[in-house]
Amino acid sequence: MNQAQLQQVLEGLVADHRSAHHLGQVADYIPELGKGDPSLAGIAVWSPEGLVSAGDCRIPFTLQSISKIFTLMVVLRDRGEEEVFSRVGSEPTGDPFNSIVKLETAERRPLNPMINAGAIAVCGMLEGKTLEERFARVTDLLEEVLGRPVSIDENVYRSEKETGHRNRALAYFLKDTGVLDGDVEEVVDIYFRQCSILVTCEELARLGLFVANKGVTLDGRRLLPRRIVRLVSTFMVTCGMYNASGEFAINVGIPAKSGVAGGILAVVPERFGIGTFGPALDRKGNSIVGVRMLRDLSRQFELSIF
Amino acid sequence: MNQAQLQQVLEGLVADHRSAHHLGQVADYIPELGKGDPSLAGIAVWSPEGLVSAGDCRIPFTLQSISKIFTLMVVLRDRGEEEVFSRVGSEPTGDPFNSIVKLETAERRPLNPMINAGAIAVCGMLEGKTLEERFARVTDLLEEVLGRPVSIDENVYRSEKETGHRNRALAYFLKDTGVLDGDVEEVVDIYFRQCSILVTCEELARLGLFVANKGVTLDGRRLLPRRIVRLVSTFMVTCGMYNASGEFAINVGIPAKSGVAGGILAVVPERFGIGTFGPALDRKGNSIVGVRMLRDLSRQFELSIF
Amino acid sequence: MNQAQLQQVLEGLVADHRSAHHLGQVADYIPELGKGDPSLAGIAVWSPEGLVSAGDCRIPFTLQSISKIFTLMVVLRDRGEEEVFSRVGSEPTGDPFNSIVKLETAERRPLNPMINAGAIAVCGMLEGKTLEERFARVTDLLEEVLGRPVSIDENVYRSEKETGHRNRALAYFLKDTGVLDGDVEEVVDIYFRQCSILVTCEELARLGLFVANKGVTLDGRRLLPRRIVRLVSTFMVTCGMYNASGEFAINVGIPAKSGVAGGILAVVPERFGIGTFGPALDRKGNSIVGVRMLRDLSRQFELSIF
Amino acid sequence: MNQAQLQQVLEGLVADHRSAHHLGQVADYIPELGKGDPSLAGIAVWSPEGLVSAGDCRIPFTLQSISKIFTLMVVLRDRGEEEVFSRVGSEPTGDPFNSIVKLETAERRPLNPMINAGAIAVCGMLEGKTLEERFARVTDLLEEVLGRPVSIDENVYRSEKETGHRNRALAYFLKDTGVLDGDVEEVVDIYFRQCSILVTCEELARLGLFVANKGVTLDGRRLLPRRIVRLVSTFMVTCGMYNASGEFAINVGIPAKSGVAGGILAVVPERFGIGTFGPALDRKGNSIVGVRMLRDLSRQFELSIF
Repeated sequence: MNQAQLQQVLEGLVADHRSAHHLGQVADYIPELGKGDPSLAGIAVWSPEGLVSAGDCRIPFTLQSISKIFTLMVVLRDRGEEEVFSRVGSEPTGDPFNSIVKLETAERRPLNPMINAGAIAVCGMLEGKTLEERFARVTDLLEEVLGRPVSIDENVYRSEKETGHRNRALAYFLKDTGVLDGDVEEVVDIYFRQCSILVTCEELARLGLFVANKGVTLDGRRLLPRRIVRLVSTFMVTCGMYNASGEFAINVGIPAKSGVAGGILAVVPERFGIGTFGPALDRKGNSIVGVRMLRDLSRQFELSIF
Repeated sequence: MNQAQLQQVLEGLVADHRSAHHLGQVADYIPELGKGDPSLAGIAVWSPEGLVSAGDCRIPFTLQSISKIFTLMVVLRDRGEEEVFSRVGSEPTGDPFNSIVKLETAERRPLNPMINAGAIAVCGMLEGKTLEERFARVTDLLEEVLGRPVSIDENVYRSEKETGHRNRALAYFLKDTGVLDGDVEEVVDIYFRQCSILVTCEELARLGLFVANKGVTLDGRRLLPRRIVRLVSTFMVTCGMYNASGEFAINVGIPAKSGVAGGILAVVPERFGIGTFGPALDRKGNSIVGVRMLRDLSRQFELSIF
Repeated sequence: MNQAQLQQVLEGLVADHRSAHHLGQVADYIPELGKGDPSLAGIAVWSPEGLVSAGDCRIPFTLQSISKIFTLMVVLRDRGEEEVFSRVGSEPTGDPFNSIVKLETAERRPLNPMINAGAIAVCGMLEGKTLEERFARVTDLLEEVLGRPVSIDENVYRSEKETGHRNRALAYFLKDTGVLDGDVEEVVDIYFRQCSILVTCEELARLGLFVANKGVTLDGRRLLPRRIVRLVSTFMVTCGMYNASGEFAINVGIPAKSGVAGGILAVVPERFGIGTFGPALDRKGNSIVGVRMLRDLSRQFELSIF
Repeated sequence: MNQAQLQQVLEGLVADHRSAHHLGQVADYIPELGKGDPSLAGIAVWSPEGLVSAGDCRIPFTLQSISKIFTLMVVLRDRGEEEVFSRVGSEPTGDPFNSIVKLETAERRPLNPMINAGAIAVCGMLEGKTLEERFARVTDLLEEVLGRPVSIDENVYRSEKETGHRNRALAYFLKDTGVLDGDVEEVVDIYFRQCSILVTCEELARLGLFVANKGVTLDGRRLLPRRIVRLVSTFMVTCGMYNASGEFAINVGIPAKSGVAGGILAVVPERFGIGTFGPALDRKGNSIVGVRMLRDLSRQFELSIF
């Protein structure tokens, strides 16, 4: 299929599913996110042949949980698997993303690095002398892949910082059990910052291609070891879509990570990266329009890795 | 029985049980408490006839969780039952005192005001413009009952403040669910302060008599409505001894509240107050020597209210 | 107060609260219980001076969970405290009566003998060669106290047996963890039978007086050691009213045990026994009318033991 | 690589890892399984080119949980996805395979069809007039793939039936919540039978090839729709290795299902099927030797699907 045909397919997906946003709603537990326009919809595919996109693909929005996969890559590179998995597990969980129960009843380590508790533990392993240095390790990677300076949405960041008490509860729990070293308020600050990084739907696709290529940029630079990116891809399958990951694996079957601002970064290994955007979320926190477009795309082109 | 006979009984209890401290250990999750001398033991009884005591009854130690009952009295008086019980439940729980699980799986309100989460919610309801004013509401009550200025152990207070991350986790969780208003760090600061208030075993007995008399001091002043003190007494029975409250009810059968510094305040309603001291704790956090002395005293004089 | 005055008080209570049944509903998870008439209401008090009652006090209904206290007495007598408490704990719990969670996450023993899991474990300790012999140990005690043969409601029994799958789940779990010996189906059969024993509200009061007198019948025969009955009384306070026991302790303050057929057996220690009847239940499974009548009676005569 | 080279690789894997059985132990919660010889080890690969195997590959052992994937295929075919997923979820879980907690605290449906509760729910959906007819639907499929009559190990079956109380607890819980229709004892009987089906390691590889080929047998007959087998493959990735599925996905990265008798059925989609055997299990219930052989094989030939 050539790029023009793909363009038509993507336009069709946006047309077919944009109105499904009525079945969900914009995240409002972070007040600033509640201002998002639920009717936006876009999908972008970036392959070695180039970028094709349809819909609202150049409007910036915040990464939210999608940022978790890049911080995990950085920390796996800097600290090594052994240390990382001594502080955070690798098992999927049927619990909601912000659950604290398993920290008490299971083995005290967060179950995996994709739930909030695990992602906060991962943030706590970023190296650097200051908060800014530590956060820069994440943005440095993103900037190298995207080829532009990265910035955060200050309003969303402040909103998360003001209302993110559940994440603070998780962080203090991890501090108590020894999973987290250092200053709790600083670690959650980094967490709120990474959630507030701005990207567009087209850029999500470019980031996805970097994952599909197992750590190699568009222009052929290897930024990370193959094994680390494969490892993160695996987490995207087993726990990238919150506690709907199992259902997504059955119905779509490709590595993906969603964020509550409405983005989904998806990956067809060794082939291409996909970004979708649609701020209305289902009850488990995933973009309604995004999941539907990915499901149809996967079925049409048999993208499932299973 | 006259006071001299009671004196003999109490001396006997201390002699019989002091060595049981070998079966437990001093709390060490708050580093400063870990310095306590486990071999100390004392018991004091204060009735309308006066005070009788035996053993180490004039050594000051920190109230810890015993403070929870006085803050609850103050808040019930200032806010009324309806508001208090809209933020904290009244059911006992088999969970440990610092558990967070039920906050997520049950109804979000802490189950009762004796577990840490509930006590922190109660601290959040203290009235006053400043932290000092709010804390003074608790110390004012204690000072009126004890007839002396009340102070805190600065080392214990600092130690709790530095290491009390689990309590911060509980507080931020309550902030997230809307149980707690105001500044979290300030509320936990009050909580750490009330835990650090210094009393002696004899004074515990005097505080116990105040509870036994349902809010009337030694010199006959009513400081609180009868109903409020009875209500707090009831909590002492159903959940005053952490998750050993049921066993204590069976074996001792009187309202009591323990603290991890080794004190227990116990009450024989309408008759007398009892204080015990013994820093070595059993696995559920209650003074080993204290529980044994109270059990024998209750059996000998048939004190059980059941 | 003389018996005629008490009669008037009781009549008033029935008149005041009968209509509150509209706020609750008859238990229907056991289909046969769903046929109960929610508008029935009665209260009976049996003291050394005799019986006084008002309302629907001679209509037979099934004991349901009230039977748990008598089986516990029998088993404590036959097996001794040590064995009983090796298989069932003594701590109250904020969980619902039919919860299975704590069996897995806590210490495997049921938390206390008043929740279903604990009561089933208690049934498993009844001695006898056959099912009939074991069940007879419970009915023998009831018959000696009531002075009449005891029978079960065959329809309710069959209904429980047909639909009691949650109780079977609890029993098989206990079999798996070694708490329960013997044949599971036989043990739950005994459990369903004891739940189906028929009594009237007046008889509940007579059974309550037996508890108030710590094991002595109306005509002065001691059937059980004082300590055993006190121990069971204590459980009635800490966990007799399902996961509303804490609230009941605060508002009523006397030992009581409720059943989902609408009965409550209550006790004023050393003074009298009370029975109430009212089939409409609140959301936690206690008789709405019964709890209200007991609350008012307790306030008017200051019956709280706290 | 030709078959002779593969033969050498497999021999090497058995030689390298056979002794690792010392790090685990044979399952003993089913007494009959406790008799297994922990030092056995074998691995077999079946591709379109034919079968290659090394070690103990012709000793029959019981399928145990591996049977779950075939029953699920049958039920998905006979009942359709919609009905199946109305009774059982599709989310992985960090809980142990025999956990009951989530049935109560989550949505009542078992979280997925690979944990025991879910597999029992799946057994309850087998169609047929008698127990034998329903069980035959599973054996029919296996016999068509294996080309031989299938039988069960009667001793293991009886042993499971006598001691499988936890599974009965799960089944009665599901009966209570309405997930399970029909006779509980019959459903668990089918479950125990399917766990007791005998296969060899070579046959596991042949069954694996059937999965790799998405429902087509060695001789080219399609027995099931492609979509159903892919769906089951997906479950093998997200929850096929109990609560070590996440770790297995990271380290091995192929669909696999393990059983507590020591077998693992693994699949390289569209390419080949793998069987491993080694009765000594790790703490999460997976064959120690099997997991190690699969990990090395996957690394050497880059088999990971991620």
